[in-house]
Amino acid sequence: MTDHYDALETREPAQREAELFSRLPDVLRKALAAPAYAERLKGIDPAAVTDRTALARLPVLRKSELPALHKAAPPFGGFVAGSLGSFGRLFTSPGPIFEPEPVHTDPWRGARALFAAGFRPGDVVLNTFSYHLTPGGFIFDASARALGCAVIPAGPGNAEQQFELIEAYRPVGYSGTPDFLKILLDAAVSAGRDVSSIKRALVSGAAFPKSLQDEVKSRGVDAYQAFGTADLGLIAFETPAREGMVVNEDLIMEIVRPGTGDPVAPGDVGEIVVTSLDQQHPWIRLAIGDLTATLPGTSPCGRTNMRIKGWMGRADQTTKVKGMFVRPEQIAEIGKRHPELGRLRLVVTRSGESDLMTLKAETASPGETLQRELAATLRAVTKLGGNVELVDAGALPNDGKVIADER
Amino acid sequence: MTDHYDALETREPAQREAELFSRLPDVLRKALAAPAYAERLKGIDPAAVTDRTALARLPVLRKSELPALHKAAPPFGGFVAGSLGSFGRLFTSPGPIFEPEPVHTDPWRGARALFAAGFRPGDVVLNTFSYHLTPGGFIFDASARALGCAVIPAGPGNAEQQFELIEAYRPVGYSGTPDFLKILLDAAVSAGRDVSSIKRALVSGAAFPKSLQDEVKSRGVDAYQAFGTADLGLIAFETPAREGMVVNEDLIMEIVRPGTGDPVAPGDVGEIVVTSLDQQHPWIRLAIGDLTATLPGTSPCGRTNMRIKGWMGRADQTTKVKGMFVRPEQIAEIGKRHPELGRLRLVVTRSGESDLMTLKAETASPGETLQRELAATLRAVTKLGGNVELVDAGALPNDGKVIADER
Repeated sequence: MTDHYDALETREPAQREAELFSRLPDVLRKALAAPAYAERLKGIDPAAVTDRTALARLPVLRKSELPALHKAAPPFGGFVAGSLGSFGRLFTSPGPIFEPEPVHTDPWRGARALFAAGFRPGDVVLNTFSYHLTPGGFIFDASARALGCAVIPAGPGNAEQQFELIEAYRPVGYSGTPDFLKILLDAAVSAGRDVSSIKRALVSGAAFPKSLQDEVKSRGVDAYQAFGTADLGLIAFETPAREGMVVNEDLIMEIVRPGTGDPVAPGDVGEIVVTSLDQQHPWIRLAIGDLTATLPGTSPCGRTNMRIKGWMGRADQTTKVKGMFVRPEQIAEIGKRHPELGRLRLVVTRSGESDLMTLKAETASPGETLQRELAATLRAVTKLGGNVELVDAGALPNDGKVIADER
Repeated sequence: MTDHYDALETREPAQREAELFSRLPDVLRKALAAPAYAERLKGIDPAAVTDRTALARLPVLRKSELPALHKAAPPFGGFVAGSLGSFGRLFTSPGPIFEPEPVHTDPWRGARALFAAGFRPGDVVLNTFSYHLTPGGFIFDASARALGCAVIPAGPGNAEQQFELIEAYRPVGYSGTPDFLKILLDAAVSAGRDVSSIKRALVSGAAFPKSLQDEVKSRGVDAYQAFGTADLGLIAFETPAREGMVVNEDLIMEIVRPGTGDPVAPGDVGEIVVTSLDQQHPWIRLAIGDLTATLPGTSPCGRTNMRIKGWMGRADQTTKVKGMFVRPEQIAEIGKRHPELGRLRLVVTRSGESDLMTLKAETASPGETLQRELAATLRAVTKLGGNVELVDAGALPNDGKVIADER
């Protein structure tokens, strides 16, 4: 039994980087066939976007913008070039955001995530994600089918009937939320039903705290986590190394300072931005609103792709101060106007009956002039007054937070 | 635009018959690889089963037997040769009966049913059958995908979110039960939502009375009926001719006297028995428990396959008389012992506080001896006494009923 889904996973990182970026110009041309990308990427030369520096100059598309964009130009806001009928299936997710499923094999690119979790061709998999309206069920169904597994499309519910299926088909694998796995294991004990065939799991869609990991493990199920979205499918996944999550192939992941499109330094927490090399439905720099950070080096499991720590919170830290919205983009703007500063962090607290803003800024050369100038910039950008506190370089926590609402 | 899905549909009937039966021996060999078929079909020579007469000598497998057979030898009662992992998906239906989905394209053979209902490649289809646990959703999803349509896997419920999808994707087609189509149309009116994109429908799974057909039609939806089961997928379907239903390709349909495996005369009502020529999961003479009758001639739409009247009731007329089961098989046994008789029909009524059985029998030569002998046979076979009434040949209704419970 081989340890990897294919040879792509163990390429030299430089080779992967070269291959992904050699494909990028063609993917950009595909994207430019869609009117909204044509507008947003106007004037770019696809042939020149062949490395991370060039990619980082392209505008970021924030997932939080999609509901309004989709509403203004249904269904996909102009970001999809093909006709509706050229896709396989059509979904929606809360927002609403609309998602098409490409027609090629493994459209949500999850086969290698299942493989990394120990699933193998010929396995029977109980899939408890819902197949209705949203893409969750099909993300894992199509992935398992692409790997060569047989799928029981169980959906989330009806435990009694699920036990009947589990006892008849004896699935070795489970896909679904970690919570529903626990519900199923608990309900089987109460009902005296046999679910012992389930030995491994790929879980997603919710937190999987250490305590629950241990409990599931103690009941004979070796569960791995996958990280994905309804737009991109599976983005990163755990491997037997159990060190963070390995980024999926055919994606270029960047981690940027929230509110910007600027990549953070290696290891710094920032927002995930993904460029997908899907020919039918490419995404160019989609900022998905989730925070993570890279892990250094390569995984002991032999997979050589970038590793991330997993989900580290939401990047959208927009909040209201004295009735006015304050957005991460505004803090980024302050940083741009004072490029000599390190990290910035706006701390919002409550003083008496009033909101209070304090801008903390890392600097190597503090001084009253800087403090005064920064307070003026803060007011100019946010239309709100606030304190400024200068701190040493590296003094602010590496947690991706640019607005800390501590009220 | 061509009027037919492919040239198979307009073959000369004799050519279809020859082609189906030339493939049958190989399909029988595939079936014999499964232990339960090997046992039930022991001693047959697949090479010799090349016409309807030879096929009619093989034992019938009654769907009503499947729950017990599946329970005794999970999951498929020994009727499936391949490993579970060689299939695409695995389902269950009430009974429980377990069903595997073959991996090839259009495993439930519904693409041509959708085509006959006016669906075309590139259409967007709202599929409201459930995808969870039972195969309904996937039967229509896989069929639409095979035809080249994009599917909205909506499932049965959440009308509010379905309206959002319908307004964004503007599906031209609907698949689901006729009842849910009406629910959706009514709810759209109450909620002021626009579902006018839906112009055609393939409905199944429930009765579709003329009144509902007219109502749906008056609201702009041209709906066609399909007849299928969770075991076989789509068996027959309406066409633009609107004359009964045309039997699907790659199936051999027989119509037999309930309780037997003996084909009825053309036009007589009987139980549907299907032999499917699916290489991965063939069915040999599966009696599905539903009644129908053939229509004479070929369809004005140009499709040349056998036509049936559609669903005409359930074939399993088993009832209880004075606390004892009386089964259609027993009436068939009486017929076998008196081969000179025409149709038989056991009428069960109530006389005072007691059940009363009357066996009506068609004969060209009535007489007291026959009547006495028949009463003795009735008692011998059913362990119950009853009256015998001899009637003229052709006097009993052609409705497939061998037991009429009139209590």
